[in-house]
Amino acid sequence: MRKLHLGMFDNAQANGFGMAPWRHPDDQRHRFTELDYWIELAKMCEDAKLDFMFLADAWGFAQVNGKRPDVCFTEGLDLPRLDPAIVLATVTPETKDLGLVMTAATLVELPYSLARRLSSLDHLSSGRLGWNVVTTGLADTTSANFGRAMPPHDSRYDMADDFMQVVYKLWEGCWEPGAVIADKSGIYADPSKVHRIDHDGPYFTSHGYGNAPASPQGTPLLFQAGTSSRGREFAARHAECVFLGSKPGGLADHVTAIRKEAGAIGRDPMSVKALAGVSTVIAPTREQAQKDYRRIIDAQNPDVAVASYAMFTGIDLSAHDPDTPMADLHTELGQTQVDRFKGQTVGDVLADFRQKGVNPWIIVGTAEDVADELCAVADEAMLDGYLVTPLIQPRATEDFIQQVLPILRERGAARADYEEHTLRERILGPGHVKLSDDHPGASYRFRRTHAAAAA
Amino acid sequence: MRKLHLGMFDNAQANGFGMAPWRHPDDQRHRFTELDYWIELAKMCEDAKLDFMFLADAWGFAQVNGKRPDVCFTEGLDLPRLDPAIVLATVTPETKDLGLVMTAATLVELPYSLARRLSSLDHLSSGRLGWNVVTTGLADTTSANFGRAMPPHDSRYDMADDFMQVVYKLWEGCWEPGAVIADKSGIYADPSKVHRIDHDGPYFTSHGYGNAPASPQGTPLLFQAGTSSRGREFAARHAECVFLGSKPGGLADHVTAIRKEAGAIGRDPMSVKALAGVSTVIAPTREQAQKDYRRIIDAQNPDVAVASYAMFTGIDLSAHDPDTPMADLHTELGQTQVDRFKGQTVGDVLADFRQKGVNPWIIVGTAEDVADELCAVADEAMLDGYLVTPLIQPRATEDFIQQVLPILRERGAARADYEEHTLRERILGPGHVKLSDDHPGASYRFRRTHAAAAA
Repeated sequence: MRKLHLGMFDNAQANGFGMAPWRHPDDQRHRFTELDYWIELAKMCEDAKLDFMFLADAWGFAQVNGKRPDVCFTEGLDLPRLDPAIVLATVTPETKDLGLVMTAATLVELPYSLARRLSSLDHLSSGRLGWNVVTTGLADTTSANFGRAMPPHDSRYDMADDFMQVVYKLWEGCWEPGAVIADKSGIYADPSKVHRIDHDGPYFTSHGYGNAPASPQGTPLLFQAGTSSRGREFAARHAECVFLGSKPGGLADHVTAIRKEAGAIGRDPMSVKALAGVSTVIAPTREQAQKDYRRIIDAQNPDVAVASYAMFTGIDLSAHDPDTPMADLHTELGQTQVDRFKGQTVGDVLADFRQKGVNPWIIVGTAEDVADELCAVADEAMLDGYLVTPLIQPRATEDFIQQVLPILRERGAARADYEEHTLRERILGPGHVKLSDDHPGASYRFRRTHAAAAA
Repeated sequence: MRKLHLGMFDNAQANGFGMAPWRHPDDQRHRFTELDYWIELAKMCEDAKLDFMFLADAWGFAQVNGKRPDVCFTEGLDLPRLDPAIVLATVTPETKDLGLVMTAATLVELPYSLARRLSSLDHLSSGRLGWNVVTTGLADTTSANFGRAMPPHDSRYDMADDFMQVVYKLWEGCWEPGAVIADKSGIYADPSKVHRIDHDGPYFTSHGYGNAPASPQGTPLLFQAGTSSRGREFAARHAECVFLGSKPGGLADHVTAIRKEAGAIGRDPMSVKALAGVSTVIAPTREQAQKDYRRIIDAQNPDVAVASYAMFTGIDLSAHDPDTPMADLHTELGQTQVDRFKGQTVGDVLADFRQKGVNPWIIVGTAEDVADELCAVADEAMLDGYLVTPLIQPRATEDFIQQVLPILRERGAARADYEEHTLRERILGPGHVKLSDDHPGASYRFRRTHAAAAA
């Protein structure tokens, strides 16, 4: 079978993904402010030849009844966090091939400065950078932190589209690859290969020149996870890797829909790589794995679920009796959510959140079970790989690497070594150092007319 | 004599400080996009026990007659540049004690996200970070790049003051030191030691919680270089280190004025450390040093001076005959500039810029000459040290380290080893890990009343 791309997916904080199992004896996420913690983790991923290490990000915090509940502090649920760009920059010299993927949000960044920050990281890592484009999660509290009004959901994607145009112009349209010659007896940069950019969009304006020269990949490899209808349209346009937070049964439809939309705007549908998020709890027997999973769940303070649910959904279940049917919360939830929670009570929903947080899919079993399921689902949903999301870190990552990866390799479903120089080549194949010509970002490249080229 | 603080001061670009001697055979600045270049440089500074490595920054570019002249490209005068935060993050794991100082501009950053970026770097470097606070240089072209209108000069400092209030609240007033306990059998963070911040300033608003926990230094060591009257007021308020771009004769007055203003707002005047920028050209004889200096000047394309002068001053001298007295440009220059250039012609001014760029002070001589002058000026102007600014890199830094530093050490004027854990302790003395209590930023710390402390 074809080789799966495998990335390690985490946050630079004491917990992640809506769960708070930091008390588990095998969890070391509370060391997230230590340089050595990150270097150890990055080296472990690189030694295992994982495709990349991915650090997600968010700017908001949990609110219940209009304030941050104490349990968020005592359990380190939502805050504090570090900046993923800085964390990934610090592991850069300690790794050589590992891809480095980070989230940055178009609603709280300025395109001109983000473009330089990411270019700098792509330069210094020799082309190993990926950018997960998000508008923003946790909008209300992010908005409060930044003191900036957030546009409504669909306009956020309009703003993000405008943002992308600026960064494409800077990354693809300003400094041509090869513009910097740096020949002491000749010239530093060829003026005919550096182009002024002019952008007057509805949200962003920029007139001038990119601050950084074209980095090895130009545009960093673009990740996106849009799931709403407008989000999917955005992903189909910009994403080179979509990452999917659906349950296995829903993956195939999601992948097909995005690829179809990408095809509709002229992109090769199969050039949009699809990676699904998956967590694993691995033990020698299924019974032991279930016990281990239970210990992870039970490591959490039970009160976290309400806060965590409120943080991710904006819905505060604290005032409702656990036996209340979710259908009774019609006004608060809206019809879509009511349909989603058909037949469930408030208690059911919170119990489910406590067990999974926002992790869409947790495989609990032996290493063989995990390998079987990953291969089967990848086949069925035409996936290109997985974001391996540890419930506890580094234990879950170690277990995956030591126990599942060898099985996948035996089956020809995982790489045994690094072969490519840049992250884009690793994911899109040899020769794909830069954005593909059919990617909308490539349209911002400077194009010489034949006459101009001959001159 | 007391020990001088010595930092290496440069930019992440192919040239720096208004000169463009990148063609010089000993200059390697054109390697600024290579990770190894930065690691070599940082290790050289750390091996020499320099206090810190300082990367300046700017966002604009040179314009002459409304466009960027080709010579800016061919000589790499102003662009391209990398992000100093990313460069310094990548050298973090490769160094252990070296201070890391970076410029970031309050006009193009958002305080909430800059606060987290700098905290992240202070955490991962174990308290080695310094921040040089600037409003912005090269205002017009920065404004164009970012598509944001720049407020007038004095309002820029009002905006910067407002910016500082937000970051002080986040760094000093939100997560108390010790708030994070991370005891798996106890609590992760103590809710009574994390305080909501509320800021409604004229320029910035923030309501919520800092994203990063208190880093080793809390607020990074603050550098500032304000020279205008409003800029000096800002420096006297916020700077722990002022760095001075005056000629030796003007240093004492400048230092005295800032310390006096700091005293007037209740700060210990001598707690404001004063570092002057200085460049050196060192050779076994004075004659040879002059020859070496001439080679550096002559390594430059002569056309750079007009562009460089325009970039830093906003004044375009290209249309004027070299023999034109500067006094004739009264309308363009304003009276202050005319007074400054009394008796000089356009040609004189450009020749001066070609020789020095914006470097205020270049010592050309033997290593003994340099050591003598550094000691004498430090005494006379009550300086605490120098920003050693290479004309060519790494050659000038190497020469300083290998030839001048041993003499300074012999005289007891330079450290022989690192003794402190954080950059602030290194500069302000043992025990000064955090902002001093008399620093305005410290007033944003949460203060318990006696009743509350007893409760």
